Amino acid sequence: MSTAEKALAFAAKQLPETIASLKEFARIPGVSANPAPNAELAKSAKHCAEWMTRVGLERVEVLELPGVHPYVYGEWLHAKDAPTILLYAHHDVQPPGRPEFWKSPPFEPEERDGRLYGRGVVDDKAGAAIHLAAIEAYLKNGGLPVNVKLVIDGEEEIGSENLGDFLAHYRERLSADVIVLTDTANLSAGLPSITYALRGITVVQLEVKSIDHPLHSGMWGGPVPDPVMAICKMLASLTDENGSVSIDGVGDDIAPMDPVVQQRLAALPYDEAVFREEAGLLEGVELCKGNGGSPYELMWHRPSLSISALEAAPIKGASNQIVDSARARIGVRTVPNMDGMAVAEALSAHLKKRAPWGVQVTTTIGGAGNWWLTDPKGPAFEAAERALAKGFGRQPVYIGCGGSIPFVEPFARVLGGVPALLIGLEDPLCNAHSENESLLIADFVKAIESAIHLYEELAQLPR
Amino acid sequence: MSTAEKALAFAAKQLPETIASLKEFARIPGVSANPAPNAELAKSAKHCAEWMTRVGLERVEVLELPGVHPYVYGEWLHAKDAPTILLYAHHDVQPPGRPEFWKSPPFEPEERDGRLYGRGVVDDKAGAAIHLAAIEAYLKNGGLPVNVKLVIDGEEEIGSENLGDFLAHYRERLSADVIVLTDTANLSAGLPSITYALRGITVVQLEVKSIDHPLHSGMWGGPVPDPVMAICKMLASLTDENGSVSIDGVGDDIAPMDPVVQQRLAALPYDEAVFREEAGLLEGVELCKGNGGSPYELMWHRPSLSISALEAAPIKGASNQIVDSARARIGVRTVPNMDGMAVAEALSAHLKKRAPWGVQVTTTIGGAGNWWLTDPKGPAFEAAERALAKGFGRQPVYIGCGGSIPFVEPFARVLGGVPALLIGLEDPLCNAHSENESLLIADFVKAIESAIHLYEELAQLPR
Repeated sequence: MSTAEKALAFAAKQLPETIASLKEFARIPGVSANPAPNAELAKSAKHCAEWMTRVGLERVEVLELPGVHPYVYGEWLHAKDAPTILLYAHHDVQPPGRPEFWKSPPFEPEERDGRLYGRGVVDDKAGAAIHLAAIEAYLKNGGLPVNVKLVIDGEEEIGSENLGDFLAHYRERLSADVIVLTDTANLSAGLPSITYALRGITVVQLEVKSIDHPLHSGMWGGPVPDPVMAICKMLASLTDENGSVSIDGVGDDIAPMDPVVQQRLAALPYDEAVFREEAGLLEGVELCKGNGGSPYELMWHRPSLSISALEAAPIKGASNQIVDSARARIGVRTVPNMDGMAVAEALSAHLKKRAPWGVQVTTTIGGAGNWWLTDPKGPAFEAAERALAKGFGRQPVYIGCGGSIPFVEPFARVLGGVPALLIGLEDPLCNAHSENESLLIADFVKAIESAIHLYEELAQLPR
Repeated sequence: MSTAEKALAFAAKQLPETIASLKEFARIPGVSANPAPNAELAKSAKHCAEWMTRVGLERVEVLELPGVHPYVYGEWLHAKDAPTILLYAHHDVQPPGRPEFWKSPPFEPEERDGRLYGRGVVDDKAGAAIHLAAIEAYLKNGGLPVNVKLVIDGEEEIGSENLGDFLAHYRERLSADVIVLTDTANLSAGLPSITYALRGITVVQLEVKSIDHPLHSGMWGGPVPDPVMAICKMLASLTDENGSVSIDGVGDDIAPMDPVVQQRLAALPYDEAVFREEAGLLEGVELCKGNGGSPYELMWHRPSLSISALEAAPIKGASNQIVDSARARIGVRTVPNMDGMAVAEALSAHLKKRAPWGVQVTTTIGGAGNWWLTDPKGPAFEAAERALAKGFGRQPVYIGCGGSIPFVEPFARVLGGVPALLIGLEDPLCNAHSENESLLIADFVKAIESAIHLYEELAQLPR
């Protein structure tokens, strides 16, 4: 029995404990939107550190910087002459959203119909759990075939804003031959997928005011500008009738799509009925046409804009008033070769230019994370293909991801352009960032098995 | 010393008790937006009834209908061969709005700088208090020169929706020779004003949905329609660049303005700097041009539209999502000869026609109250002019009011077109419907004196 076979057997036997540890992890409401210092994220980091120690990692440390949610680090560097893999996951989670929409409480993980429900279970606590389980399986059976460094980020869901500082502090320690990130999705349940492209994200907050207090809409309505109407007119101008981003000066720098990428997209399975169901599109709702490209092209290779928050006055208890102010939060997903900060500036200028009636406009740039694109070729990708094929029993596909992982681009760059393998286990029904987030347990098991195969495959990497 | 002089002296002496009763009244949070049966409105009605009894009114009764906020009634009908006046006020109040914006708690009335602050103090608890004080001043000094019937409405702030039923039940009892309503405004502090026009109001609620749960804006952004963007595009189409109502099929029936009304508007004092200050317009904010008319014309004689509530997802704790739904509440102020229900239907059709990407649209008609317009001529108006000139020491002006009093139009109609005198005491700084609502106490005193004069003047009304 090879070490990998022993590790696979151990992982299978250990699965109940692994799931129990994941559940315990998921009970910690480590919402990074709440500012640091954040007791729940400290608890969440401690949980990661203890788990790392338990599986046999060394030099386990909670990496703290003032005002930053803690990153957690552990390593095992005893595989002589073998490559070093840097594994990345994050332990922070999105806010739980509307409590009344959860079928079971967000921080009380519950198994139903083969899925584990709870905030953060799939994004990205399972990502950490996979590697911890695979590492444990080797370390309790003689050792790993590669050197590993595991980093668990504490601020991914708020854009890993302090990553620059983090890299500056820990660059030496994090050097590796290949990076493996487990925070992406599979194209469908059971279909292993390697992500070669991520969009960037630029966030801008907007406030519009016209009066210093609400006014009676009868007494004053007519000459007094309504800031809610003003914000609607301003926001409405940000996309065209096809739903495409339509911001002055934005988009001229979008790179044409590589024919190889176009071929990859065309080769992927696509079924509109399945897409509609997975997205939860209501009856009669049409897909936005965008530039006329396929949904994959629109989600992965074209910019998009969402108004992620909008508030003026609540409906409940509404009075017949002219509201004094309205606020919105706008997210623009960016693609090569757009400049995220330039998008923020252009968006802000576009909004100000379109403000009617001289209403006061304040924009705040909430951050700009870069897009990332790689050419998925070479021995590391081949190793990943073989490992996933063994773990899932299906040949993996190459996909883009419309989401953003701020960690990836700067990290790959700082580490000298080493290959980055993005292999996650979200699936289209997992509701990441929404209520009733869940993990498909069968894919979780396959992902652990794939990770065990991956370490063995990567041990053969030419150095 | 005439009875009126005795009454004036009594009212002056009684003022501290009157203000104390008003404060006690203002401590009751009778928010009619909370559905019936509503314990606070029951308490508020009881307070009115006790006050009526204390001042000497008879047949005092809380008029209750199932599911309706209580109306309160009292009368004094011993002035033989004298006319009968129906006095109207309302005891319900608007919701208090945002607690953190109040300088003193909304339901703990507080005097500061000659004003009394609290929710409902001016709209319209002072309206009731004026008549109760004037009635008391006569009844404690030998009797009233006229017959009075006092109705205090419990659902004015939600559109007096059950007024039809109320009228059907109590039509006989409410018959009168003239109606006096104390729920309107003066053009400026200390300038008595008789209101000859009210706008109507049509309220429509709107919900837009595209997906059955929120989605990750990165994973899905592009092909999936954003319902928040959709609602912005739909709402933005409801007014033009001058802020004028621009709804398909609405406005063709607007009556041209009477030259007499135009002359009245032109005769009124207007100072843009004062207007800007009273409205609380922020620096650089321009007045909407509308159809090019003066602010008085735009506020009183042209339709206007306000988005009184708008909500999608809150900014606080916002995640990078495509929101699943957005809601708005739209109020349209209507003028002669617009049909409020037709406006509601047209608004709903306009919105549905402009819904992009097949998003699901639900509209709910929240009610339509009629506009009202009278020709302020004849002995009742002359009596009011004389009474106000005596009470305020200034000649009254005739003004419109952009607000709506749903009670007025059907009541004047049902009572056979008797004159309706609308003489209130809101002033431009009173913040009715907003936070820090307040009553100018000096004008409250003048209004009580005017009411005492008014009863005497109306006693001379030819029958």
